[in-house]
Amino acid sequence: MSSVTAADTASNAFRVNTLAVIGTGLIGGSFALALKQAGCVGRVFGVGRQPETLAQAQTLGIIDETITLHEAASQCDLIMLASPVGTFGPLFEGLSKALSPKTLITDGGSTKGNVVAFARAALGERIGQFVPAHPIAGSHESGPQAAFADLYRDRHVVLCPLPENANRAVEFVGAAWRACGARLVTMKVGQHDDVLAAVSHLPHWLASLYVEHVARDANADLNLQLAGAGFGDFSRIAQGSVEMWRDIFMANRDAMLRQLDDLHDLLGQAREALKAKDEAWLETVLAHAASVRREWGERQKHESGRGK
Amino acid sequence: MSSVTAADTASNAFRVNTLAVIGTGLIGGSFALALKQAGCVGRVFGVGRQPETLAQAQTLGIIDETITLHEAASQCDLIMLASPVGTFGPLFEGLSKALSPKTLITDGGSTKGNVVAFARAALGERIGQFVPAHPIAGSHESGPQAAFADLYRDRHVVLCPLPENANRAVEFVGAAWRACGARLVTMKVGQHDDVLAAVSHLPHWLASLYVEHVARDANADLNLQLAGAGFGDFSRIAQGSVEMWRDIFMANRDAMLRQLDDLHDLLGQAREALKAKDEAWLETVLAHAASVRREWGERQKHESGRGK
Repeated sequence: MSSVTAADTASNAFRVNTLAVIGTGLIGGSFALALKQAGCVGRVFGVGRQPETLAQAQTLGIIDETITLHEAASQCDLIMLASPVGTFGPLFEGLSKALSPKTLITDGGSTKGNVVAFARAALGERIGQFVPAHPIAGSHESGPQAAFADLYRDRHVVLCPLPENANRAVEFVGAAWRACGARLVTMKVGQHDDVLAAVSHLPHWLASLYVEHVARDANADLNLQLAGAGFGDFSRIAQGSVEMWRDIFMANRDAMLRQLDDLHDLLGQAREALKAKDEAWLETVLAHAASVRREWGERQKHESGRGK
Repeated sequence: MSSVTAADTASNAFRVNTLAVIGTGLIGGSFALALKQAGCVGRVFGVGRQPETLAQAQTLGIIDETITLHEAASQCDLIMLASPVGTFGPLFEGLSKALSPKTLITDGGSTKGNVVAFARAALGERIGQFVPAHPIAGSHESGPQAAFADLYRDRHVVLCPLPENANRAVEFVGAAWRACGARLVTMKVGQHDDVLAAVSHLPHWLASLYVEHVARDANADLNLQLAGAGFGDFSRIAQGSVEMWRDIFMANRDAMLRQLDDLHDLLGQAREALKAKDEAWLETVLAHAASVRREWGERQKHESGRGK
């Protein structure tokens, strides 16, 4: 009783009568299951191109029935776009043909600048009905069978309200994500793309290119024979889905190029310091980086402890 | 019985009557304990600058008694140099003043080119008595209390024989490391430094500079707030000892500069590919890196399964 907080009250008050999930895999399916578990959704509809995926989602209790994109646009209170970002252009076009003024749209795409561009091109003056979001959560698995109600519990969801969004729209979509158990962080679209480029896309880029460098080296076989735990940690993310990461890099190209230029400057300074035997420069940077990383790790431990 | 292999026979035949360990911490202490456990060492002597460390090593059964550097050089069959690499210059100088022709020296330093240069400068024509080694094993802890007999079990030890080494010397030192349970890999000095720069020093360099980049960014606070598990894996090694890594980078400067130049070329190509929207280039490199990393991970799993 005494543990009921303002956030709980807000989620309890939230209710969506009709939800359409476009793409009923890990991201969309977990969104639907989370709202069902929270008891704040009426009927859940599924939209998708593959009948067998929709049938599976229905069997698993993720969706109650299947509808068309046109029906979703004209009849539902909330639409969650959860298919690959590459499909968003045609989907926004389709939605725009029948969009009811009472319908709000959110999404689960991992880049935002390009998604908002697709939405603006298709929705025009109705762009205020779209409240972009990016849940920082995932899994190595995909498809309806990978979806689970707690995917977003205690995970960050970035909300990127647009200047055209009414407060009521932002609050409604934010409440839906909070009802999934997520911790909301609000940013501008460009800032989201810069931050994600820095902490997610750039490490993947560097890990992949580093592994490629090691494998192209004259000593490639010996390199891989002697590589140990540090190599393993540093390069683990290079195993991710090739198509997904290619698409992310292309979609977030401008922010990536900014990040790469800044990093390139720092790498150049470091190389000069090493060449000039500037031990003080190296020590200062190594010490600062070690302390930043250590504090981050401590905070993660603390937060994951609090979350459970 | 049928499991006795040529390697076992070689270790069983190996015996060192008098061993001196210079530096009785994790690396030197574990070497002594491993040979004691294997039952192939007579008396173990400790050499060091800190009497309390030597006393602790003796209490822990790592060494049997303490001697001077001069006594170690003139009386012992094998000397293991296991203090920080920065102390090796004066130590080789000291050893050279009293070195018996029957004494062999090995070491546990993580760079080899600079160590061999120290040794050549001090030992001159007696350089053949030094067989350089680098055990790829360690721990976050240090000191005699961190030492344990199985530190080297199933770990790689790189042996870097010099042109001046007699076969007998290389075999004797190799047998000592094998008796510790290690898997020997033989390389030339320069090749060792290139390989270690590629798979150990370069990842640490990149992880540290990447964290520094993220922390210097305009969105530093948001970056660290949204950073997730991928960031954590990629940057974990940036927490290592600042002094140790500064020294390693300086000691292995030439190989690091070669690695940095090659990597810099690849990073430049990747940036151009992104800028030119060359999706095919990106996909090819991402796919190759992912498959190299996946195969490496599979092999590690296989080997660690075999090792235990």
